[in-house]
Amino acid sequence: MINYVEVIGLIAATCTTASFVPQVYKAWKHKSTKDISLSMYIVFIIGTILWFFYGIYHESLAIILANGITAILAFLVIFLKLRHK
Amino acid sequence: MINYVEVIGLIAATCTTASFVPQVYKAWKHKSTKDISLSMYIVFIIGTILWFFYGIYHESLAIILANGITAILAFLVIFLKLRHK
Repeated sequence: MINYVEVIGLIAATCTTASFVPQVYKAWKHKSTKDISLSMYIVFIIGTILWFFYGIYHESLAIILANGITAILAFLVIFLKLRHK
Repeated sequence: MINYVEVIGLIAATCTTASFVPQVYKAWKHKSTKDISLSMYIVFIIGTILWFFYGIYHESLAIILANGITAILAFLVIFLKLRHK
């Protein structure tokens, strides 16, 4: 039987992770990132890395994957921001 | 006894939520948001709202609070973006 609540959790994780893709694309394409807050992305990455370890402890593949991928995407935003400074 | 893993989870939630505060502040202060991806924030808000309901089902105050507050902060970024378009 399908657990609908866990499906909602998976869609939620997919949304909050995938949402960073258009931001990475926009920063890469327009080579302009001045409106993006560097502080936001630094604190956000710290958070996702902590979530990542939280997921490892709880053996939750969803938390590990979602936060691992989000951390990489957020790192790309920081990389593009520092590159186009 | 303190459950250190749950403390890490709480710090993680605080970071991923609080990280949006400097972005809201920056968008509000500089009145410029063109580099911020609207698509990112729309998909992100959908994700946090789904997480919110996921938290209600699991009776997890941490998930409810973290995603409720993050959704409001992300909504403020969208509001400022549309306002300064």
